[in-house]
Amino acid sequence: MESLLLKSIKGEKIERFPVWLMRQAGRYMKEYRELRQKREDFLSFCKDVDLAIKVSLLPLELLEVDAVIIFSDILVPVELMGVRVEFKDGEGPSVVWDGVVESLKKLSFNSADFVNEIIMGVKKAQKEVPVIGFCGAPFTLLSYMVEGGGSKDLRKTKLYMWKEEGYNSLMTLLVENLVEYLRGQVLAGADVVQVFDTWAMHLSYEDYKDYAETYLKPFFERIKRELNVPLIYFYRGSSSFLEVLKDFAVDVISVDWTVDMIGSMRSINKAFQGNLDPHLLYADEGLISQKVLEFLRCIPRKTKYIFNLGHGIAPDMDFHKVKFLVNLVKSYRV
Amino acid sequence: MESLLLKSIKGEKIERFPVWLMRQAGRYMKEYRELRQKREDFLSFCKDVDLAIKVSLLPLELLEVDAVIIFSDILVPVELMGVRVEFKDGEGPSVVWDGVVESLKKLSFNSADFVNEIIMGVKKAQKEVPVIGFCGAPFTLLSYMVEGGGSKDLRKTKLYMWKEEGYNSLMTLLVENLVEYLRGQVLAGADVVQVFDTWAMHLSYEDYKDYAETYLKPFFERIKRELNVPLIYFYRGSSSFLEVLKDFAVDVISVDWTVDMIGSMRSINKAFQGNLDPHLLYADEGLISQKVLEFLRCIPRKTKYIFNLGHGIAPDMDFHKVKFLVNLVKSYRV
Repeated sequence: MESLLLKSIKGEKIERFPVWLMRQAGRYMKEYRELRQKREDFLSFCKDVDLAIKVSLLPLELLEVDAVIIFSDILVPVELMGVRVEFKDGEGPSVVWDGVVESLKKLSFNSADFVNEIIMGVKKAQKEVPVIGFCGAPFTLLSYMVEGGGSKDLRKTKLYMWKEEGYNSLMTLLVENLVEYLRGQVLAGADVVQVFDTWAMHLSYEDYKDYAETYLKPFFERIKRELNVPLIYFYRGSSSFLEVLKDFAVDVISVDWTVDMIGSMRSINKAFQGNLDPHLLYADEGLISQKVLEFLRCIPRKTKYIFNLGHGIAPDMDFHKVKFLVNLVKSYRV
Repeated sequence: MESLLLKSIKGEKIERFPVWLMRQAGRYMKEYRELRQKREDFLSFCKDVDLAIKVSLLPLELLEVDAVIIFSDILVPVELMGVRVEFKDGEGPSVVWDGVVESLKKLSFNSADFVNEIIMGVKKAQKEVPVIGFCGAPFTLLSYMVEGGGSKDLRKTKLYMWKEEGYNSLMTLLVENLVEYLRGQVLAGADVVQVFDTWAMHLSYEDYKDYAETYLKPFFERIKRELNVPLIYFYRGSSSFLEVLKDFAVDVISVDWTVDMIGSMRSINKAFQGNLDPHLLYADEGLISQKVLEFLRCIPRKTKYIFNLGHGIAPDMDFHKVKFLVNLVKSYRV
C-alpha cells in the first residue's frame, strides 16, 4: 500500500496530512545523545552504518512520524571529493579546500557506499514509512567550500561567484557528483529525495537567477529524468525565489515561515512542505495547540501538503513538545 | 528649487537617479573615526549636537550624496522612555527593561530636543540636499526591549508577542511615542522621514500581518496625515512582506537585495529605494562598475527611484569604493 507521504505528494485523497520534521533525529532527543557518545568525531558517527541506521529510526520509534530521513550530513559528498571536512564541538564545520577544481574527485553512484548502506538498513528495518535520501544543493555546498565553513553573509562566495573563474566548473562538477550521490541513494531504496539549499538565501534575486538557478534547473531535471523519484527542494529565504521555482522540475517545495505558503498553494500547482515557525516549540502546549490548529485550518487543499517546520529542530527544544506537535498534526482530519 | 530626491519620490522628471547610502556616515570613514574619538560612550556621541551635525554632514562633503540622514541611533527614543540602553565596544546594544509597560514614559515632540537640534543644525549648515529624519519601527524597537539587545532569531520577542500580555499596550505606546518623536524632527525641518524595520524579517508572513502590520498601518497613516512629509519604509526580508506593503501609506519602499525589486516596480505604484547587495563593495572597481551599470539599466522607470544599498555600509568597506559607487550612479543618465 502506498504511503501517506507519497499519496499526498501525488495529490491522492488522504485522511490526514503526513508529518515529518527536519532534524527530527537530533540532539534534542536523549536517545540521540546517548548514541552520539559512541563516536567522538561527528563524521565518523555519520559513517558508522549501524549507528546511523539506529539514529535514523529514532523518530519513527519515538515520534511515529510519517517518513524517515536518513541520518547523515550534507558535507559527506564534499569530503568524498577530496576536501578536508571537520566538525569541532560547539562550532560549525571546518572545510579546507585548496581551491583547485581540477583536483577534485568525480563521484559515482557507489562512492558513498556507507550512505547507501544506511538507506538499505533503514528500508530493511521497517516497511511502514518511506525513506528520504538527501543532499545539499550545489550552491550551498560550493559556499561551504569557498567560505571554509558556514557563513553569515557569504562574502567570499559572492566574490568567487562574481569573478566566475572557478565558479562554473565547480558548479558543473558538483551537479554531476550530486546526481551520482543521489543515484546511489535511489538505487539503495530511497523513496523520495530532498535537496537542502540552506545558504542561497543570502543571494540577491538576480544572482540566484544568474548563478544558482542556472545549475539547479538542469540538476532537478536530471534527477527527475534519471532517478525518477519524488523530489523535494528545501531552501531558506523562501519568499525571495518562489516565483523562479514554479518552473523547476520539483514535486514538493519546502519553505520556511517567511513566505505566504498558504497564498502560494493557491497559485502554484506543486505540493508544499512546511512551514511552521519552529520557535513556537518554545511556547507552552496551549499556545502550540492554538497556533498549529489555526495554521492547519488555513491549508487550502485537502492534499498535496506535508506538514513540517520551516527549519530544523533546535538542540534546546523539548522532546515532549515535539511529540505533542506531531500528535496534534496526526489527529487533525483534513 | 526642489531637490532631486523629492522630485524622484513625486515622480517628476529627473536627469539622473538620486543616491544616498544607509549608514553613509560611519566607521568606514577616517573622518568619522576621528570625530568618534571625541566621546567614549556611543550614546553620548549621538547626543553631542555639534559632533552629530558634523558627522551627519560628512557624506555630503566627502561623497556628495543627494540626501543627508541625521546621525543618531534607533534606540534613542527607547532610552527617553526610561529604558537603560548601553553600547559596549564591539558588541551590539544592551537594553535593560523591567517589563512594566505602565512605567514607561510618554514622549512629546520636544522630548528629544538634541535630535531636533541636530536636524536644525544640518538644515542651517547646507541648503543643497534634503534632510532625512528617522526612527525605528515599533516592532523593531519592541524586539530590542524584549530581547535585551539584538537577536538572531527573536525567540523571546515571539513568545512575548504570541502571549499578548504586554505586547499590545507596548506597541500602542511605541506608536504614540514614535509619532511624537518624528513630529519633533519634522517641526525641526526634516524634509523626509525613514522608518527602519530591521528585525521584522524574522517574523512569519502570518505573524507580520497579525502583529506588525496591525500597528504599522495606522502608524504610517498618522505620519502621513499629521506630519505631511514623504515617508520611506526600510525593512529587511523584503520579499516576504512586499504584498502586504502595497496598501501602506508609505511613499517609498526601501528594500534589501533578496527581493525582485525591478519586477515589483512594474506592479507596485510607489517609489522604490535600494537594493544593491552591499557585498559588491568588496569587489574591485571593474566588477563594481559592471554590476552597477547592469543593475541601473534594468530599472524600468525614469523616476520614482532612489539608489541605495540593500543594507548599511559595513565598517570594513573601502571609502574609495563607496565614493566610486556614488560617482558611478551620479554619472548614469536616465
